[in-house]
Amino acid sequence: MKAHVWVMPKRTVLDPQGQTIQHALSSLGYAQISDVRQGKFFVLNLDGWSRDEAQQQLERISKEVLANPVIEEYRFEIVE
Amino acid sequence: MKAHVWVMPKRTVLDPQGQTIQHALSSLGYAQISDVRQGKFFVLNLDGWSRDEAQQQLERISKEVLANPVIEEYRFEIVE
Repeated sequence: MKAHVWVMPKRTVLDPQGQTIQHALSSLGYAQISDVRQGKFFVLNLDGWSRDEAQQQLERISKEVLANPVIEEYRFEIVE
Repeated sequence: MKAHVWVMPKRTVLDPQGQTIQHALSSLGYAQISDVRQGKFFVLNLDGWSRDEAQQQLERISKEVLANPVIEEYRFEIVE
């Protein structure tokens, strides 16, 4: 089983990496890109959990290890 | 219009961040997580492009700015 986890800075949190990329694109002539947000994406291989267990454990792993819930939000999807 | 871009280390490239997370999870008791790959996820706001133009421009932006095609692979999706 595989899981995909997305971790993004919260809307209310500045995203300097995203801003830097937006400025770079703007100076390269891509004025159509009005905003960039950068986050993290994880692909996890899971073995030996039922789908329900995986759902519960991924909630914990996302909250406690992959994301910092003070400044980041996360979502995950179990695939395969 | 919005676009989502995923940038991941190529299969053949070591992913030290992913490995570090996998080891951390393993030492926290999550032995069921056998592999972790970490990549980047971008959300771009686009204005003033048709869907076809956006498709072409995103291909260039992904290849030339967001990813390093020597060691990373990318994919993107236009949403909304």
